[in-house]
Amino acid sequence: MTSLRTRRLAVLASGRGSNFRALADAAARGELGGTIAVLASDHADSGAVALARERDIAIETPDPGRYRTRLDAGAERTWIARLAAHDVDTILLAGFMRILHEDFLAAFPGRVLNLHPSLLPAFPGTDSIRRALEHGVRVTGCTVHLVNAGIDEGPILAQAAVPVLDDDTLASLEDRVHAAEHALYPATVRRFLREPFTLEGRRVRWAGEGA
Amino acid sequence: MTSLRTRRLAVLASGRGSNFRALADAAARGELGGTIAVLASDHADSGAVALARERDIAIETPDPGRYRTRLDAGAERTWIARLAAHDVDTILLAGFMRILHEDFLAAFPGRVLNLHPSLLPAFPGTDSIRRALEHGVRVTGCTVHLVNAGIDEGPILAQAAVPVLDDDTLASLEDRVHAAEHALYPATVRRFLREPFTLEGRRVRWAGEGA
Repeated sequence: MTSLRTRRLAVLASGRGSNFRALADAAARGELGGTIAVLASDHADSGAVALARERDIAIETPDPGRYRTRLDAGAERTWIARLAAHDVDTILLAGFMRILHEDFLAAFPGRVLNLHPSLLPAFPGTDSIRRALEHGVRVTGCTVHLVNAGIDEGPILAQAAVPVLDDDTLASLEDRVHAAEHALYPATVRRFLREPFTLEGRRVRWAGEGA
Repeated sequence: MTSLRTRRLAVLASGRGSNFRALADAAARGELGGTIAVLASDHADSGAVALARERDIAIETPDPGRYRTRLDAGAERTWIARLAAHDVDTILLAGFMRILHEDFLAAFPGRVLNLHPSLLPAFPGTDSIRRALEHGVRVTGCTVHLVNAGIDEGPILAQAAVPVLDDDTLASLEDRVHAAEHALYPATVRRFLREPFTLEGRRVRWAGEGA
């Protein structure tokens, strides 16, 4: 099944961009179901920006404003305008470390996705992998969800389980979770772009590829 | 490796006893690492009691006292005495629907295990499978943990992941979680009885079978 038109995606990343790389690789193989039209970052010197430059993907680094963990209202308006100028309809957060507010979500209604390094609703917020390890869980994982006004609270599109091994360190568990993320996020984006779904309460009900 | 002596176990169950059955089957095959010396229940007419009778396992059904969701202090003393009379050193909760308090836990220090039908810390408390399904998670599971004074809070000994499928109903998901429980609980009891471990914070660090 082919989409009626090619979806144009924006990736928002703050850090080294390992999930952006997985998304860009999938797009380059024609497996993402859309085109990454722009990479936006709150850090002009981030690995994600360097990778976008390498891959010849447009880059936006608007001023994030005066806060450290969110975009202020004025900055949010600028970010919306700069993304909209690239004619994108879907926003993929990939290690973007700032909270988005209603204005941003309203500009891309139901089309902002996030990747979180735990099996939500367990371990929302920051530092999830370390907190899961210290809690002593034997299974953790990662989650792709729709972003709503809550923190790591939106309807869940997909999850993957990752075992915690007896001798895991934070580094070894991080590696395993990140590997799961790099597989789950592109596959889920592809499904999101191709397959309709409905919400039953907060449960995502996929309609099937033929729908 | 063989234990220095045969461990004597008590199973506490309130309901139909499907996990008690899995434990008794493993014991009968010599795979539990111990002997189920007694089945105790707060319901004399429960499936668990009927199964104990079938399997020729001793049965205790002490008065649970005046509350519905816990044992009152007097009842707890009676339960401790009745279990101690069977010379048991390890308590396995298997669908036991009452909260145990300090006196009970102090009588079997660090040797009360519980099985919970979710990947804790997600969905503690009652009705976990339905709540996980309605939350829209795509991965759930079950947890075997040490019981402490909190509810479903003690250090985690083992977990198993269970996928939630697109077309799952509550019944189909319950079946899959219960199947995972029936494998996980006996295997974890065996490991608990054979392999030393230490607690690092709340993380269980197994020492290895040879230790």
